[in-house]
Amino acid sequence: MPKRVDLDERRRTLASAAIEVIAAEGLEGTKLSRVAAHAGVTTGALTHYFEDKDEILLAALEEVRRRLMAKADDGTGQSPLALLSEALPIDPDAAKEWRVWLAFWGRAAFVPALARVHRAYYAEIENALAAMLSIPTDAAAAIIAAIDGISARVCLEPDLWPPERQRALLALMISPHLPEGAARDASLATSAA
Amino acid sequence: MPKRVDLDERRRTLASAAIEVIAAEGLEGTKLSRVAAHAGVTTGALTHYFEDKDEILLAALEEVRRRLMAKADDGTGQSPLALLSEALPIDPDAAKEWRVWLAFWGRAAFVPALARVHRAYYAEIENALAAMLSIPTDAAAAIIAAIDGISARVCLEPDLWPPERQRALLALMISPHLPEGAARDASLATSAA
Repeated sequence: MPKRVDLDERRRTLASAAIEVIAAEGLEGTKLSRVAAHAGVTTGALTHYFEDKDEILLAALEEVRRRLMAKADDGTGQSPLALLSEALPIDPDAAKEWRVWLAFWGRAAFVPALARVHRAYYAEIENALAAMLSIPTDAAAAIIAAIDGISARVCLEPDLWPPERQRALLALMISPHLPEGAARDASLATSAA
Repeated sequence: MPKRVDLDERRRTLASAAIEVIAAEGLEGTKLSRVAAHAGVTTGALTHYFEDKDEILLAALEEVRRRLMAKADDGTGQSPLALLSEALPIDPDAAKEWRVWLAFWGRAAFVPALARVHRAYYAEIENALAAMLSIPTDAAAAIIAAIDGISARVCLEPDLWPPERQRALLALMISPHLPEGAARDASLATSAA
């Protein structure tokens, strides 16, 4: 039996393949055979690691969340605006991850178990933001809603939103909710954009 | 042959039935027979007004947009915060309409024709907001992103977001982007909440 760490790594690799397929095809369009092909394994090997399609879809969502939190950890020392911009669909990988979020939102509103997963993520991200930026939780909620609202729009009209336009709108929206020095940096970024 | 106005009314009634079914079942779960039953007509009668399932889904989305713009027209004379709050999922009808938006977002990211519809809506709503509130279009974009980000979250954890909490977060987010008197009203609403 493989060691636990190998199992986790293998599952993450397969979840990453699922992210690629979901971002291209949507949730309904995602076939296990495509995920397996993307990961270079057989469908049988895939079902060795995951019970069914729902379980691999959930693993893809969890991997998207893990990447988001990892960006926050890696971003220590960056300005809040630079750090928070990393949560937007500003590069091809982040754009894929956002298409996965959006696909899941469209289903989670109708599937209580998925809604519970999102609820836990909101609480985790809100608390992490409040602690990291030393801001009240309602300011953290405002920042989350800003990132979510901008990113949904960018997913629906990506060619209208180059990275600098996304960052400028984020700066406009979040600067009132950042600690004072950070807010000044963010508003400078807006006027430069 | 019925007069044009009757046809339009009939289609809107059927689109409203589709909104009810989509809000309960999601897009994939929506069956034409359920929409017809909800409208009190036969499935055959439904297909007299709409070519196929996609056409009735689109009519439901268009009806949701029409209701949103009608609220804006009806709200002349209201404070900007009161008016914009009407766009949130603050009552059962608005919550249904938001579940329809969210279901479509999850699909529009993967269906270019649907993405084009959303793109036209964004432009229309952004221009209407900028004109109505006499604000720059980037401030209007910030208000739209705030409403979208809050509403997505409310759809995913509705029991945590009573109307007054939704309004308070909206006030916190949009007051920096409103004309001065309106912004003061909005920030008073926040401190009262």
